[in-house]
Amino acid sequence: MSVDVERLLINFKTLEEFKKFKEYGIQELSMIEDLEHNMIENNSESPFYGIYYGGSLVARMSLYRVNAKYDYYFEPKQDYFELWKLEVLEDYRNKGFGEKLVEFAKQFQLPIKTNARINSQGFWEKMGFTPANYEMERDFGQNPFIWMPDGVDEKDTNEK
Amino acid sequence: MSVDVERLLINFKTLEEFKKFKEYGIQELSMIEDLEHNMIENNSESPFYGIYYGGSLVARMSLYRVNAKYDYYFEPKQDYFELWKLEVLEDYRNKGFGEKLVEFAKQFQLPIKTNARINSQGFWEKMGFTPANYEMERDFGQNPFIWMPDGVDEKDTNEK
Repeated sequence: MSVDVERLLINFKTLEEFKKFKEYGIQELSMIEDLEHNMIENNSESPFYGIYYGGSLVARMSLYRVNAKYDYYFEPKQDYFELWKLEVLEDYRNKGFGEKLVEFAKQFQLPIKTNARINSQGFWEKMGFTPANYEMERDFGQNPFIWMPDGVDEKDTNEK
Repeated sequence: MSVDVERLLINFKTLEEFKKFKEYGIQELSMIEDLEHNMIENNSESPFYGIYYGGSLVARMSLYRVNAKYDYYFEPKQDYFELWKLEVLEDYRNKGFGEKLVEFAKQFQLPIKTNARINSQGFWEKMGFTPANYEMERDFGQNPFIWMPDGVDEKDTNEK
């Protein structure tokens, strides 16, 4: 059975499916509120991408293209993707859905930065990510892991 | 038995105690590396505060004063504290240690911002924190909760 990564639409059905994911928080609540108050359109595009399996959403991630002027991770300074809330529902793990979502993000050939959750370091390393040099004022409580296409380096954090 | 909040020193003993905490990651690894390479001094002050009980570290948090020029949360724009990695070891929960750490942070009378973990919302609300308005470009995968002393408001994120 082949599965595809789809860009998710903001609507009450999608937002209801989001409730099954552990990483559900203020972002999702604010999307519901914006929808209820007609501040965003039903069916507009969200920063979320996901995989449907048997008609329901079983994996998702959020992906946002950060403008080069806010790039403090890469050399040369450039647009990159912030990837967060990568999660596969428990019953659907070990089917390659997480890998599929990350491969989707990598295909744009822009660097990617994520905040690796505790115990997920092995997964990110398998996907070609490396731990970034930790900079307190930039990273606070994060575990920044980065992936770089050819020709891109990590910013040297010593030359500030 | 009265317990005190202490500013933690960076040394191999402290860093060994950090391994007992779930939120152990690149920040701690980078502290070990800096210590090993003499890039920071043994016993210099860390951004961590903690509570010792029976001679061992049982609770900790990290606290960093962010300069007003990077304040995108409060009105008027001002120095505030970023609080992260608040954690009480499992066997020492429900003794008020988490509350004690947060009260310590509040005594400086500067606003505080934290990233509330899933299922910790009730704790933060009990401590007087409120969910911040979620702004994707600012908050990405976070659940920002804020606390403000009298005279401080949340920044109106609509007037950009």
